Amino acid sequence: MKKIVLAYSGGLDTSYCITYLQKELHYEVHTVLINTGGFDSEELSAIEKRALELGSSNHINLDIVDNYYEKAIKYLVYGNVLKNNTYPLSVSAERVFQAIEAVKYAKKIGANAISHGSTGAGNDQIRFDLIFQTIAPEIEIITPIRDLKLSRQEEVAYLQKNGVDYSWEKAQYSINKGIWGTSVGGKETLTSSEPLPDSAYPSQLEKTTPEKVILHFEKGQIVGINNEFDKPSANIIKLEKLANAFAIGRDIHVGDTIIGIKGRVGFEASAPLIIIKAHHLLEKHTLGKWQQYWKEQLANWYGMLFHEGQFLDPVMRNIEVFLEDTQKMVSGTVTVTLKPYHFSLDGITSPHDLMDSKFGQYGEVNNAWTADDAKGFIKILGNAQAIYSHVNNVDYD
Amino acid sequence: MKKIVLAYSGGLDTSYCITYLQKELHYEVHTVLINTGGFDSEELSAIEKRALELGSSNHINLDIVDNYYEKAIKYLVYGNVLKNNTYPLSVSAERVFQAIEAVKYAKKIGANAISHGSTGAGNDQIRFDLIFQTIAPEIEIITPIRDLKLSRQEEVAYLQKNGVDYSWEKAQYSINKGIWGTSVGGKETLTSSEPLPDSAYPSQLEKTTPEKVILHFEKGQIVGINNEFDKPSANIIKLEKLANAFAIGRDIHVGDTIIGIKGRVGFEASAPLIIIKAHHLLEKHTLGKWQQYWKEQLANWYGMLFHEGQFLDPVMRNIEVFLEDTQKMVSGTVTVTLKPYHFSLDGITSPHDLMDSKFGQYGEVNNAWTADDAKGFIKILGNAQAIYSHVNNVDYD
Amino acid sequence: MKKIVLAYSGGLDTSYCITYLQKELHYEVHTVLINTGGFDSEELSAIEKRALELGSSNHINLDIVDNYYEKAIKYLVYGNVLKNNTYPLSVSAERVFQAIEAVKYAKKIGANAISHGSTGAGNDQIRFDLIFQTIAPEIEIITPIRDLKLSRQEEVAYLQKNGVDYSWEKAQYSINKGIWGTSVGGKETLTSSEPLPDSAYPSQLEKTTPEKVILHFEKGQIVGINNEFDKPSANIIKLEKLANAFAIGRDIHVGDTIIGIKGRVGFEASAPLIIIKAHHLLEKHTLGKWQQYWKEQLANWYGMLFHEGQFLDPVMRNIEVFLEDTQKMVSGTVTVTLKPYHFSLDGITSPHDLMDSKFGQYGEVNNAWTADDAKGFIKILGNAQAIYSHVNNVDYD
Amino acid sequence: MKKIVLAYSGGLDTSYCITYLQKELHYEVHTVLINTGGFDSEELSAIEKRALELGSSNHINLDIVDNYYEKAIKYLVYGNVLKNNTYPLSVSAERVFQAIEAVKYAKKIGANAISHGSTGAGNDQIRFDLIFQTIAPEIEIITPIRDLKLSRQEEVAYLQKNGVDYSWEKAQYSINKGIWGTSVGGKETLTSSEPLPDSAYPSQLEKTTPEKVILHFEKGQIVGINNEFDKPSANIIKLEKLANAFAIGRDIHVGDTIIGIKGRVGFEASAPLIIIKAHHLLEKHTLGKWQQYWKEQLANWYGMLFHEGQFLDPVMRNIEVFLEDTQKMVSGTVTVTLKPYHFSLDGITSPHDLMDSKFGQYGEVNNAWTADDAKGFIKILGNAQAIYSHVNNVDYD
Repeated sequence: MKKIVLAYSGGLDTSYCITYLQKELHYEVHTVLINTGGFDSEELSAIEKRALELGSSNHINLDIVDNYYEKAIKYLVYGNVLKNNTYPLSVSAERVFQAIEAVKYAKKIGANAISHGSTGAGNDQIRFDLIFQTIAPEIEIITPIRDLKLSRQEEVAYLQKNGVDYSWEKAQYSINKGIWGTSVGGKETLTSSEPLPDSAYPSQLEKTTPEKVILHFEKGQIVGINNEFDKPSANIIKLEKLANAFAIGRDIHVGDTIIGIKGRVGFEASAPLIIIKAHHLLEKHTLGKWQQYWKEQLANWYGMLFHEGQFLDPVMRNIEVFLEDTQKMVSGTVTVTLKPYHFSLDGITSPHDLMDSKFGQYGEVNNAWTADDAKGFIKILGNAQAIYSHVNNVDYD
Repeated sequence: MKKIVLAYSGGLDTSYCITYLQKELHYEVHTVLINTGGFDSEELSAIEKRALELGSSNHINLDIVDNYYEKAIKYLVYGNVLKNNTYPLSVSAERVFQAIEAVKYAKKIGANAISHGSTGAGNDQIRFDLIFQTIAPEIEIITPIRDLKLSRQEEVAYLQKNGVDYSWEKAQYSINKGIWGTSVGGKETLTSSEPLPDSAYPSQLEKTTPEKVILHFEKGQIVGINNEFDKPSANIIKLEKLANAFAIGRDIHVGDTIIGIKGRVGFEASAPLIIIKAHHLLEKHTLGKWQQYWKEQLANWYGMLFHEGQFLDPVMRNIEVFLEDTQKMVSGTVTVTLKPYHFSLDGITSPHDLMDSKFGQYGEVNNAWTADDAKGFIKILGNAQAIYSHVNNVDYD
Repeated sequence: MKKIVLAYSGGLDTSYCITYLQKELHYEVHTVLINTGGFDSEELSAIEKRALELGSSNHINLDIVDNYYEKAIKYLVYGNVLKNNTYPLSVSAERVFQAIEAVKYAKKIGANAISHGSTGAGNDQIRFDLIFQTIAPEIEIITPIRDLKLSRQEEVAYLQKNGVDYSWEKAQYSINKGIWGTSVGGKETLTSSEPLPDSAYPSQLEKTTPEKVILHFEKGQIVGINNEFDKPSANIIKLEKLANAFAIGRDIHVGDTIIGIKGRVGFEASAPLIIIKAHHLLEKHTLGKWQQYWKEQLANWYGMLFHEGQFLDPVMRNIEVFLEDTQKMVSGTVTVTLKPYHFSLDGITSPHDLMDSKFGQYGEVNNAWTADDAKGFIKILGNAQAIYSHVNNVDYD
Repeated sequence: MKKIVLAYSGGLDTSYCITYLQKELHYEVHTVLINTGGFDSEELSAIEKRALELGSSNHINLDIVDNYYEKAIKYLVYGNVLKNNTYPLSVSAERVFQAIEAVKYAKKIGANAISHGSTGAGNDQIRFDLIFQTIAPEIEIITPIRDLKLSRQEEVAYLQKNGVDYSWEKAQYSINKGIWGTSVGGKETLTSSEPLPDSAYPSQLEKTTPEKVILHFEKGQIVGINNEFDKPSANIIKLEKLANAFAIGRDIHVGDTIIGIKGRVGFEASAPLIIIKAHHLLEKHTLGKWQQYWKEQLANWYGMLFHEGQFLDPVMRNIEVFLEDTQKMVSGTVTVTLKPYHFSLDGITSPHDLMDSKFGQYGEVNNAWTADDAKGFIKILGNAQAIYSHVNNVDYD
């Protein structure tokens, strides 16, 4: 019997896939849930139970949080990656890593085919397929949801006909949770003009008195919170808890999808936004001007290709090496104040802080050079413009 | 008698310059205050009176707000320019335009020399000198503050000795106000770790109930607020009043100065930040992916050169033409919700909104293509990676 | 009867299409040859005759050279566009313009469908389809060669069966000629290691004594040759004749195709290469450093998107406006020496030449600044590095 | 007695410096000639003799070719660095490394000061000073030629007065030779319009029959020539001998100097140009599209900063790491044909060649995808443009 691996999420679409792949296409279905931090153990047990009930021959839950941090989130922090200056790639990055783990699993168990539940209208299908076909071109990709374009009603009816009678109430919003943020789509996000209501976001305001938090960075990685040190993924989770009580990190991402249409999606990502902004501030103090300039260029590109599923493009590895090399001096603390719905950055301390008053204080004192040095500097700095103006007789009126 | 034009601000440093230039260097001093929106008529009268008392032969106040909008702010909005992703160039842009107007005035009245009150430790000296020496290389630049490096006490003593006995109490912060924001420097901003206290910012929280504001854009320019239409500079001022009641727009800029040291300065710029973020959102809906990409590249560069006083570099004119050309479709409304200390963007409406459901709805429906089209797309999109992987026998473990 | 417009080239593939579209698909076939400078009037008559014999209901020859220059070549010169630093887009640019004219013609005569003869293995199909589906999404695209994947033998046999019995001897190389160069593909270019033999190139060495040519540029356009002035397209043709006698302009382009595979093709493009290199030299003398930097960035991108058929992407119009704006001062003469198989640039004259000895002579004399100015300049230019070195205690061994 | 280290070249300017520093400034002068490949042992002995005669207390010759290759040339090859698309940084790169070695030597012997012979009108003063003041801010920089602005006659007269009576006949051109090329400046290069005469270039045509050369690359480095393997610096020298017989590698560089004026200089650099072009071709076959794109961006920047003496900017190290990482697959052979005054690239072989016919042959065969895949690809690739066109009702006439 032919084996198929299905990336299972517990939702209606992939539940339909289990039964469809088994009953109609006669596959031995192996379901896998790849947890990037969005599921607790109770949810995982329930999902496993459901998978088996629906016809999965075997189900596994894979926790990839640490691997995902090490191979992806780390670089997103190094690069201060916010797609379109807004979105920390909450869903996009994790989908790529789910695809990688799913196809590795398929190869490992000798599957003939691999399946995901994405539609033909989004980015996820591309993230899955690109990874699948690159890593395992010999394994067939089967995508019932994309191919059949069924309505919810049709899917529910099919499952009922096959003896499955869960209550599939439609959630008002489609929620996707991982360690690097939660996306919230539906209803208002299908328009251009409407914001999501407060209630649509997972976290609600619990605290109103501002609270200071100290983030400790070591070579660009978050190694501690408030003088307690732990591995970065644990610090992210800890910071998220602190910040969610202030309902921090809500926004809406509008962007160009890989398929050429515009897409809009809400998200809540308190820890990613705070970490990225704090890390960026630390870099402003510890990196040179052109390091910052080129980091931004490369990191934006990295974020774009990553978002678009092209994580295996060889340039991505080159960019990672560049980003890592820039982080040698990005160590120190950043103090952040959490407030209702927003946060502010107080300042930093770092042994590598380049704001060193021995040389001068901006606008106040010039210790390391004289007024004449400054005049000579400006004279020559202006040569090219003066020549251009002279030769071309530029009129400034 | 030799004439000198002095860019006068009313403060101690340039007050010292008036007397020094007249008494010690024997110039006929012509003072000019170039108002970029930071002074009201009462302040302007007081400054004029003081200038004449200190020894100015002639004083004029020039209001350049509309010219400054047309030749600078407009492009900063087109380009969503925030230096280091934070600072709307509040001081830097206006200083350049003050320099341009001062040197034009010097040429007009046939001055032999021109003067500013900047120190040798900051960016402003460069903005002034670069503009002066490019536009009027024949006019000598005289800068007593930079050359003499006097303390406040020495300046006050000199003025007293010359019969001027104002009370020059030292403000705790050095404040610089213009239409595109107010900078706040001193004390904490001379450290890397301390935030400015709330009280240091010019606007204080007056309202706590969120308020919606509709911004109307026409080809990238803000042409109206809440269905009332006026010239852009008037709309900026109107929006600033609305937003300042919520104490919006505070932040601290850390950056690389032109002279190579790091500088840190606080600012309050509610209208610039809201307009830029709203404009950017409208662009996400109305511009193509690569338009956004290249706009960002060019605008960041434009902001950097502008900040660094290189406004007369010929590439700046080329970039302005590019930016203007991208704005043809950037028309519509953006709704913003003002809240205590922050704001959020609700959404947009535009006849040029590219999020058009006729083609598809992101993640939901693909009207304009089929599942097979999508599969073919992904197949070929992945060719390069598949070939690279095959040829180089890449191991993904 | 349904009408179809076919972009006809006179070759076997599109000849097959005429008969196939008429006989099998029952279309009224309207053939159009869009001449970008590669066909003389004799060839055009022969092609028209053949089209009608094969079953075309109507054939027209469109000469688009001047429009093609004005809307494309001009910008390729402004941008010094050489794909992968080698290839002047000889075929790619003309294919896009042939597509535009073909689809306009289809709309004009109310055609139901439009056809081209490209295979599924190259870039041309993409150039055609992208333009067709953007400009006229309502017109169906029919591509027999891509769909049927026939061999030459099968095509010839089909035509013979339908009473057409030309001798279709297979040329050893596939040649494509236009005003902006001639491509030469086949045999060796299908390998990675073999060069084309000399005989494969259209022009052969006729002259061996070096010859000087003066190119006159006006705002970036070539307006004259050797003191004779004509429209740019005429000057290109004139220069090509002069240069082809020296067998100048041969090279091989290796690049990433739109479909992800690598492609390799020979070309001969003497006039494009000479004009671009001469124009570039004139720019080195007349443009500022950052103008040159950003022109190169934007022009490379322009060339890439153009090559890949994305000519209608809105960013392309923005880039054209930028490039045009940079050309205001790019006027003067460039002297070129033609030699066997290569050429060299002698130098330029221009009223806008920024190499003006009034300010200084490189390495020799500094008139506009002093030794102390230079020392002050370098002192401050080095501040950032000195601070970085000091703070981080960098070891240079 | 205070010690000074002088970077000595054997020419008039630095000869003047020896005597001036000793006699007028009373320094113990330590001369050092830092050989980057331009001097043979006979020349070095003569220079040493002269230095001591002129008053040097101690002279050393340092051969830094291998270190210079390892820390600089290697990256210039990885990056295919040609300044302004022309100049392989022949002088600029070696000057930076001479500065580094000179200042290290000054630190080693405990010198109080360091000196070079550059004028105030060129780039070299900046390269020297920037390196000196960064690596050893405590050592004073003394530059008699820049400070005194003497004529040749004055220098010769001064030396005669001090008993030195060499014949300092003025060479018609100022020649600077190193392993990465020879610069030729003077007379014609001080104009914009005149080329250097053939006789000004060091190598003259000796062979006219074309000759094939095979270059072997391993991870981006040239490891062999014609199946003989040696260290890269040896291969560069060997290739240069082969190519100089064909008088290959002449050109003129026109560029923006660090001090804002335009500079023009001739050069001969056969081996650098051949190696860079061959290496670039190998990359076109072995690297992905975006690897090539970003390499070019970063390498151009690297070349610019290097040329401008900013070699110690921390971003340079980050870029080197990036470039090195891209070279993993850049191995194989490139065949070059040497011809009189020019060369052509025949082709490459590489185990990492991505032009692999298993997937398809450009324009000929599509094995890895179908016609329908191609159509789906183009359909979706065109979505954004189709939507833009539809929404904005674009008129293409």
